[in-house]
Amino acid sequence: MEKIVIKTPGIISEILVGESWESVTSMLPERGVVIITDDNVLRLYGDKFPKVPVIAVSHGESSKKLGVIEYLAEQLLLQGVDRSGFILAVGGGVVCDIAGFLASIYMRGIRCGYISTSLLSQVDASTGGKNGVNLGDTKNMLGVIRQPEFVICDTSMLITLSDQEYLSGLAELIKTAVIGDYELFDLIEQNFTKIMAREKDLLTALIARSVKFKAYVVTEDELETGLRRILNFGHTYGHAIEMHMFFKHGFAVASGMEIATEFSFEKGYISSVEKTRIINLLNKFGLLNYHNIPDDQIDRLILHDKKKTGAGINFIFTEGIGKAMDKKVTVGEVTDFYKRFRNKKL
Amino acid sequence: MEKIVIKTPGIISEILVGESWESVTSMLPERGVVIITDDNVLRLYGDKFPKVPVIAVSHGESSKKLGVIEYLAEQLLLQGVDRSGFILAVGGGVVCDIAGFLASIYMRGIRCGYISTSLLSQVDASTGGKNGVNLGDTKNMLGVIRQPEFVICDTSMLITLSDQEYLSGLAELIKTAVIGDYELFDLIEQNFTKIMAREKDLLTALIARSVKFKAYVVTEDELETGLRRILNFGHTYGHAIEMHMFFKHGFAVASGMEIATEFSFEKGYISSVEKTRIINLLNKFGLLNYHNIPDDQIDRLILHDKKKTGAGINFIFTEGIGKAMDKKVTVGEVTDFYKRFRNKKL
Repeated sequence: MEKIVIKTPGIISEILVGESWESVTSMLPERGVVIITDDNVLRLYGDKFPKVPVIAVSHGESSKKLGVIEYLAEQLLLQGVDRSGFILAVGGGVVCDIAGFLASIYMRGIRCGYISTSLLSQVDASTGGKNGVNLGDTKNMLGVIRQPEFVICDTSMLITLSDQEYLSGLAELIKTAVIGDYELFDLIEQNFTKIMAREKDLLTALIARSVKFKAYVVTEDELETGLRRILNFGHTYGHAIEMHMFFKHGFAVASGMEIATEFSFEKGYISSVEKTRIINLLNKFGLLNYHNIPDDQIDRLILHDKKKTGAGINFIFTEGIGKAMDKKVTVGEVTDFYKRFRNKKL
Repeated sequence: MEKIVIKTPGIISEILVGESWESVTSMLPERGVVIITDDNVLRLYGDKFPKVPVIAVSHGESSKKLGVIEYLAEQLLLQGVDRSGFILAVGGGVVCDIAGFLASIYMRGIRCGYISTSLLSQVDASTGGKNGVNLGDTKNMLGVIRQPEFVICDTSMLITLSDQEYLSGLAELIKTAVIGDYELFDLIEQNFTKIMAREKDLLTALIARSVKFKAYVVTEDELETGLRRILNFGHTYGHAIEMHMFFKHGFAVASGMEIATEFSFEKGYISSVEKTRIINLLNKFGLLNYHNIPDDQIDRLILHDKKKTGAGINFIFTEGIGKAMDKKVTVGEVTDFYKRFRNKKL
């Protein structure tokens, strides 16, 4: 088990990679705990949950909306949860996002912790404190940044994921490698078979590496005023693809990384050899699917992106495997490149 | 003009008491500003607003709900407001509460400032960063604590308030005096006529005093883990009365203060002379109205109160004018005292 600590003003957050999820009992207060989960996770693990009230939402992205937050708040109130309460999220990115947001605003903030059940959330979503819900087809439009007290990443839970969910998480693992960890990229390239077999110890090592890098970035810049932006590599195009094509998050980000890598190559920031390595790795895991967003839709989706400020977007380029760069470009450049990339593929 | 500064982690918030609201133009960024206001304020002052997009909600407590937050977020998105955006709230407590909450969660937080138009919000609501919406009949159930960059309290705007709104604000002014400022209490007692005439300079002096005390409390304990709780004097009963009897906030708090003062007297914390002075002052301004919450309703409303943790409530007693004390009492004691108080009045 590896413990990674994130210290931000007011809170110390512990990420426990390789810990058994059932050990959570020792981390909970004696009273006031409520579990928030989804129907899938409840079916798989519910019989071993700590004996506290459980509220389950429907699995999937459609639960990431304000109406669900309101419903959950009403349920907490019915359960008598007060300021001394504690929300334990058991689930993937969606469950942690809504439970974390709810904990941030319920009675102006109560305690919370996560048991992170998907590869996507273990690698990325549950570290860093970003939470929130979508607004229409705009991703994560309403939320805050607030660290949970702990995140348990039990890699033995990854066995129950569907292939699609598992691969979706791999995309964010590759993202971390591309923006900040050359050796991690090497390890992923060299261990294709073991990764596909979901070998527990290897996964623990890879996830811990990824979380360490993210923890470093978040500790430096929790509120994303600078360095933290690099974590958005692949996400400007990725969010647009996710919302328009209904890809799973990781697949959308993989496609977004492909375009961002091509964009970086066109700008002269990355060599053709490294560009090819990145795209080949994404292809090897079957992460790149066909997408075709019409002109007016890509314009609208990019304009609504949270990374836009004023007329420009903080776009993340790669300067070679393990190195990322934040550069302000115009919205027009970003949408034009998408259109050219798409038309070349047609 | 008096400037009072609140320094909390990450933000410096300036409260400008006696400043002209039209000087706000110099405090706004060049682009990305949107005004949030209500229909009443828009009618009275809209023609002099800075030339930026304006979104108006219906006046009154019914706008303090999650559905309105969602509507406003959609409007901001339509206006193209991004992370560099700025929300200027122009209104009383309700407008500042929803605009501040929206600014806290829109794209995980954008900048904001308030022009505070009611006495209630100038004296109390817009200092301290508490924002949020109600959930059903439970007050301020969803929200966060986050300071606006500035609050302009232009006392010349108070002329347009209805008597009821004005008096409602006076109740919170008296609350500040009772919990922390003996001299302020004296000043209010001695200046009844001038206060009723809404004399601008006197109001500026009284409001500045009140804001200074609150700013001190908030700087010491922004997140209400200790000292800040004293600001809830009168609010445990007050919120119950407000939600059940539909009193305006200040009138409900005035009744809450009356009961809390009687409770303090019964406990032996305050002399009969000072108890009488407090209740007489509330009566002189016509702040005490008849209320009669049935047993089952008072039990439920107190149980849902945010000041409840575990089986107890942090109840605020007065130990004499200018001194407050936070003491944990059981929910049963609090509801029992209400019932006895109510039955004595019948």
